[in-house]
Amino acid sequence: MRQQVHFVTLATTDLDAARAFYRDGLGWVPLMDVPGEIIFFQVAPGQVLGLFDAEKFDRDLGRPSGTSGVSGLTLAHNVEGPEDVERTVAAMTRAGGKVLKVPQQGEFGGVFHAHVEDPNGVVWEIAHNPGWHVDDTGRVVLG
Amino acid sequence: MRQQVHFVTLATTDLDAARAFYRDGLGWVPLMDVPGEIIFFQVAPGQVLGLFDAEKFDRDLGRPSGTSGVSGLTLAHNVEGPEDVERTVAAMTRAGGKVLKVPQQGEFGGVFHAHVEDPNGVVWEIAHNPGWHVDDTGRVVLG
Repeated sequence: MRQQVHFVTLATTDLDAARAFYRDGLGWVPLMDVPGEIIFFQVAPGQVLGLFDAEKFDRDLGRPSGTSGVSGLTLAHNVEGPEDVERTVAAMTRAGGKVLKVPQQGEFGGVFHAHVEDPNGVVWEIAHNPGWHVDDTGRVVLG
Repeated sequence: MRQQVHFVTLATTDLDAARAFYRDGLGWVPLMDVPGEIIFFQVAPGQVLGLFDAEKFDRDLGRPSGTSGVSGLTLAHNVEGPEDVERTVAAMTRAGGKVLKVPQQGEFGGVFHAHVEDPNGVVWEIAHNPGWHVDDTGRVVLG
């Protein structure tokens, strides 16, 4: 099995709030938007983030309606420096995000980071991570 | 804010089971492996999946220990044809995965898919999706 994730799909209670946050607030461009059902955003080469109506998500998994709030997940967005962490957190706050952890030095690896929750409870880590880089071929180098 | 996810991090109760499943069972190569703490796998150009000890995950988010089981999330892996769906599901089962939905026609867009749970409850969708492709630049095309 190839080592590849093609879609990350999240159960989303309020698709309108998600659209307002990512598209209108952060300026992201949907790859596809089916109101009441799903919104797709490309978030890496060859990879899509899907925000999927929570009831349909549960039905697709054969689970009782209302079971699938998002938990146990963070999505991270890395930026060039500490001041970009501040700037991005400010932009997410203006877009309707809620700050869970203000920008600060993290516990691991010299990271400077913050946590912001989107309107549906999806937690983003915004980080400057000096021990991380991506080479010209897309290969991630850590440490 | 750039439209990019750099890390997908999941609270993981049993890191040894995760290692046995992804590394030993599926043959994935860790980018970094810190026993008892975190395992990283690259899963897209410029993107890493992190399996993070659940207690440390909760502490990092400032939440009470034991709150963060993974829910409301699926990760999808697309393959070339329906027979590859069967083959991949068989490989995941041999590696210790649990089939939640046997390979079958999906509700949407002509997809043929299955759902398999990893040993920590992370749900994978294995899919042949004829309405999806990735062009040479990494751009995803849907529909």
